[in-house]
Amino acid sequence: MRKIEHIGIAVSDLEKSNELFHKLLGKKHFKTETVAGEGVETSFFQVGETKVELLQATRPDSPIAKYLERKSEGIHHIAFDVEDIYAEVERLKTEGFEILNETPKEGADNKLVVFLHPRSTNGVLVELCQEKYL
Amino acid sequence: MRKIEHIGIAVSDLEKSNELFHKLLGKKHFKTETVAGEGVETSFFQVGETKVELLQATRPDSPIAKYLERKSEGIHHIAFDVEDIYAEVERLKTEGFEILNETPKEGADNKLVVFLHPRSTNGVLVELCQEKYL
Repeated sequence: MRKIEHIGIAVSDLEKSNELFHKLLGKKHFKTETVAGEGVETSFFQVGETKVELLQATRPDSPIAKYLERKSEGIHHIAFDVEDIYAEVERLKTEGFEILNETPKEGADNKLVVFLHPRSTNGVLVELCQEKYL
Repeated sequence: MRKIEHIGIAVSDLEKSNELFHKLLGKKHFKTETVAGEGVETSFFQVGETKVELLQATRPDSPIAKYLERKSEGIHHIAFDVEDIYAEVERLKTEGFEILNETPKEGADNKLVVFLHPRSTNGVLVELCQEKYL
């Protein structure tokens, strides 16, 4: 785990939240991206070496839509930057963590991503991400 | 907002969670600290320029104890490092954010801290922190 790559925040109205976080952070988001596989539209703000990622559902069966139904807007996950996601998954499995997708999948922002189940991580949805080669 | 200073995670058993996060992050916490005014015992892990702060209540009426009663273990707040906390509070008030304590108070880790109410920040409990001079 080299750094916190981003913090994911579930929002119900991305446009309104982009304005809110612009005011809060004193800067605009630097990009938006839709991840069709996850059913989300995202926007990113840079804060130091870390990013804030806002997540809005694009369809009612997406994980973010379901999250907002059960809970409410707020911090959804923490993503850690890793050098070798395959090695890290093996290490964390050995340590007893519950891996949600053992095969890394395509995430936003040119990343391979793996999630750990919050019940094995103190209630925190943890994402591992590795930059894909361009 | 210069960087994410730390991410606060509410836990019910600090000793167990210190072990869990040691396994997760591949490193031990580098310090613990009790903040009597807030009724919390904390531990800190360094991850890049950011820290993970675990928070355990030390008395039943502490904010963390109440949080764990209402919700469950998990991400409790995001703290942003600011250069001038007084100027930042003024700026955020003008932008319409709801400040929980307008007068900065003593936080863990040699910081002056101010919290923003989650209802004005998309459900995210936001902390501002400024390093105190030694």
